[in-house]
Amino acid sequence: MNETTLYQHGTLALLVPGLLTGTLTMKELLAHGDTGIGTGEGLDGELIILDGKPYQVNSRGEVNVVPDDFTLPFANSHFAAYRPLMTVENATQEELHDQVLGLTHDANTFFSILVKGTFTDVKTRAVAKSGRPFKSLAETAKQQSVFDRQEVEGTLLGYYSPQLFNGAAVGGYHDHFLSADHGFGGHLLGFGTVTGEVQVQTFSTLEQHLPVDDAAYRDHDFSQDDIAGAINQAE
Amino acid sequence: MNETTLYQHGTLALLVPGLLTGTLTMKELLAHGDTGIGTGEGLDGELIILDGKPYQVNSRGEVNVVPDDFTLPFANSHFAAYRPLMTVENATQEELHDQVLGLTHDANTFFSILVKGTFTDVKTRAVAKSGRPFKSLAETAKQQSVFDRQEVEGTLLGYYSPQLFNGAAVGGYHDHFLSADHGFGGHLLGFGTVTGEVQVQTFSTLEQHLPVDDAAYRDHDFSQDDIAGAINQAE
Repeated sequence: MNETTLYQHGTLALLVPGLLTGTLTMKELLAHGDTGIGTGEGLDGELIILDGKPYQVNSRGEVNVVPDDFTLPFANSHFAAYRPLMTVENATQEELHDQVLGLTHDANTFFSILVKGTFTDVKTRAVAKSGRPFKSLAETAKQQSVFDRQEVEGTLLGYYSPQLFNGAAVGGYHDHFLSADHGFGGHLLGFGTVTGEVQVQTFSTLEQHLPVDDAAYRDHDFSQDDIAGAINQAE
Repeated sequence: MNETTLYQHGTLALLVPGLLTGTLTMKELLAHGDTGIGTGEGLDGELIILDGKPYQVNSRGEVNVVPDDFTLPFANSHFAAYRPLMTVENATQEELHDQVLGLTHDANTFFSILVKGTFTDVKTRAVAKSGRPFKSLAETAKQQSVFDRQEVEGTLLGYYSPQLFNGAAVGGYHDHFLSADHGFGGHLLGFGTVTGEVQVQTFSTLEQHLPVDDAAYRDHDFSQDDIAGAINQAE
């Protein structure tokens, strides 16, 4: 089991023009890790994999475990081998992010954070699955729901990518959330404060897999897409 | 042996501010492939690996096989499993590049080309190794020699990377050359025409390894570097 490799299927960039076909199954994704995040075909909800279990938060806010044949256009996974980094008390999201970088000096490295604790004013979102023909990320993301909890116990699973890889991945942090009771979660838009335990895992390798058998991906001309702009908007 | 993965150590971006420490040995690079290109510590020449043999063209134009403990800041390798694509006759470099993309539709995919034939007006370059403290890529590259041959039989080994990965790799084609008599080669600046056989190999995966144990890499602030500009200048 390789604990220094982060596996990624697809790119953030291919979502931008709406290349939303599911080109990897959950079974294949889980072969590369027991921990991860992603989205389903047509931006079908927000995925968070913890301890080998793939939870999906859909646009009604429901949390389901998805089957092996669930397909994804964009996702990443890795085998968990976190090390404890610090305890935080009433830290804001920005403080959390900055303190992790300050302690790890990993700004030029792919790494993951796992934060278990009590979060206040948590805001998440999940997009509603769109059908074919798929529209652009900006159009599809209009069909999103936002959820919040004043105080909730749960797990933040985040991935940090060096800015050089913005577009392939999300440059900087990309956080998903799942509550301890598995009743609430999604793509983390933000929170007030967190009190809990912070763990990190550093990767030496990004294994970037591309959907090279997908005709729509192969034939798309990316030169006209404003990828950085779309990431700013959507993330 | 994995024939659908392209392994890359380091990034083009880290060369720009002069992070030129050799952070991978040739032995480690060869463990990921029998075919590849790269440069040595301090931009010590231009490497081309063919059939498992790592040739270096130094700034005096000499071609040497380097030992296992030769170190590299930036390199890539893969296990050769090329498929014949086409025969070309008096094709320019631009025609070669365009025809390969036209036939493969692989503009969004990492792939390699191997061209064996007779080349006219071949221009290569090799940089002279610089010592510590390393200077920027632009400064170091001033110590480069340019070589040419009016007509020469040899092998062009090239890698194509999708533009999204420009900065991590060289977006577009990155070609090295070695003559059949092993007396001439380097980073290919250009040629007049080629007549010969063109083979290609497509990769579904980029295995991007970063020098995460190198303090200079970890601590560098890349936000002020003009990476795309430097690639335009140097490549």
